[in-house]
Amino acid sequence: MSVEIAERAGFCFGVKRAISMATEILDSHQDSTEPIYILGEIIHNPQTVEMLEKKGAISITEEDLEKVEPGKLILRSHGAPLEVIEKAKKLNFEIINTVCPFVKKAQIISNKHIESDYKIVIVGKKEHPEVKALLSHSGFKAQVIGSVEEIPNLNLTTDDDVVIIVQTTFSVREFKNIIGEIALLSRETKVYNTICNATFRRRKGALSVAQKVDVNIVVGGKNSSNTRELTNFLKDSGFLAYQIERPEELTKDLFTQVKKVGITGGASTPMWVIEKVKICIENILDSR
Amino acid sequence: MSVEIAERAGFCFGVKRAISMATEILDSHQDSTEPIYILGEIIHNPQTVEMLEKKGAISITEEDLEKVEPGKLILRSHGAPLEVIEKAKKLNFEIINTVCPFVKKAQIISNKHIESDYKIVIVGKKEHPEVKALLSHSGFKAQVIGSVEEIPNLNLTTDDDVVIIVQTTFSVREFKNIIGEIALLSRETKVYNTICNATFRRRKGALSVAQKVDVNIVVGGKNSSNTRELTNFLKDSGFLAYQIERPEELTKDLFTQVKKVGITGGASTPMWVIEKVKICIENILDSR
Repeated sequence: MSVEIAERAGFCFGVKRAISMATEILDSHQDSTEPIYILGEIIHNPQTVEMLEKKGAISITEEDLEKVEPGKLILRSHGAPLEVIEKAKKLNFEIINTVCPFVKKAQIISNKHIESDYKIVIVGKKEHPEVKALLSHSGFKAQVIGSVEEIPNLNLTTDDDVVIIVQTTFSVREFKNIIGEIALLSRETKVYNTICNATFRRRKGALSVAQKVDVNIVVGGKNSSNTRELTNFLKDSGFLAYQIERPEELTKDLFTQVKKVGITGGASTPMWVIEKVKICIENILDSR
Repeated sequence: MSVEIAERAGFCFGVKRAISMATEILDSHQDSTEPIYILGEIIHNPQTVEMLEKKGAISITEEDLEKVEPGKLILRSHGAPLEVIEKAKKLNFEIINTVCPFVKKAQIISNKHIESDYKIVIVGKKEHPEVKALLSHSGFKAQVIGSVEEIPNLNLTTDDDVVIIVQTTFSVREFKNIIGEIALLSRETKVYNTICNATFRRRKGALSVAQKVDVNIVVGGKNSSNTRELTNFLKDSGFLAYQIERPEELTKDLFTQVKKVGITGGASTPMWVIEKVKICIENILDSR
């Protein structure tokens, strides 16, 4: 076989759950006139958002909430900030929160430390919706850092006790460095390893295929953090890897002198997109 | 100046305290017939042990406790295992425990977690007296590791909550790596940074001198963990460094084509030994 899909590619548990919740609501309300909205991207995958829109979902932003007629409001799997949920409730939206249970766990930890003397540190990308929601769950008490270089901004002293929570799809390598540095700068450090297990398993699967092939294609949304990290992980491990969002992005140039190709995908990448990429690559290899 | 002693070389707070406690007891009992014992090395420095023996202290081992006439028993600054303290008390020794307050803090943390569901991990050298005492204070519930390579022995799962305590003189770099790895293998990790502040300050002082000299002489007991780590730290930072215990070990060969020499010493190295080393090096440089 010249094209192989890695084990554990495609939807993780939390994404599967979010999409099935949304699909179920949309399917069972085909005859209803009540509008069903999705706030932002339910998952970081444009094909899935398109699919849900075809089923009748209306994509809106937080600013739109006050402008539209209230209805059902599907919230993203990355979790939503508490104040957005409150605002939507006040405006009489019915909330369907698809937050991933693993993200929810991190939110509960963040929330549990609001009243404590611990400094709360969220390790993640400031602009990622999961991180924004986590920050809201800490009562905006947490500080967010995304790299070792930002640690000095925390102004830690050896009298400080610190709680560290991490974005479920954050880079394992960078997280390790950050933990070590913070633990040495503070008195007591409590680390909650909220990096998702699916992330580790997906990497293992991708690595196993990467060792057998000449080039790796990583499929996923351009703004999917876990897909980008998966691509970087393969590159950091010394393998050739390209990230694409759609089969149309594949060109012959990517496969010059290539015999075997590995494919993997992020947690928010539907298997049918991965399968389509596989067929497309097989066609390119055959047509040479 | 061709020979420079680094800032913060020599006795740390805990060592100063231990020696002044022991000296005081010995000096104030010069006319008493009650024997005064030291169990093991009060600090890892042979010159200091010799000095206390000259003042009348009798060095004994744990096995000797049952063989000698009871008297005052000076326990080391690294801390003593609880069962040894109990045994000595039962045998009617009067305990003078010189345990360093920073080591004591680590012991209290170790002790506090005996009844908890946390797995206790002591990061340190298995054979070091401080680590042996820490282990005893955990009710022998803790596991001891000294390197990243030993982490698999802990058999951690993502259901495990872990408490990490570290030998006060352990390698900062290795500790950082260990924390990161453990935090990723377990669910919750509580890290108590019990590496002593004096260790950091001493390194900073040594580094500052090392940048100005051609070779570094690190003075300290052969079995002094913090002295060995200090030497390794300088070597790892790219500097030429030799560890010696006594001035007699200095040879002309060490200073071939050397213009400037830096001297530093471990936490248990008396300043008079460091000064003697300085004079000895100056003589060697002058005689060339």
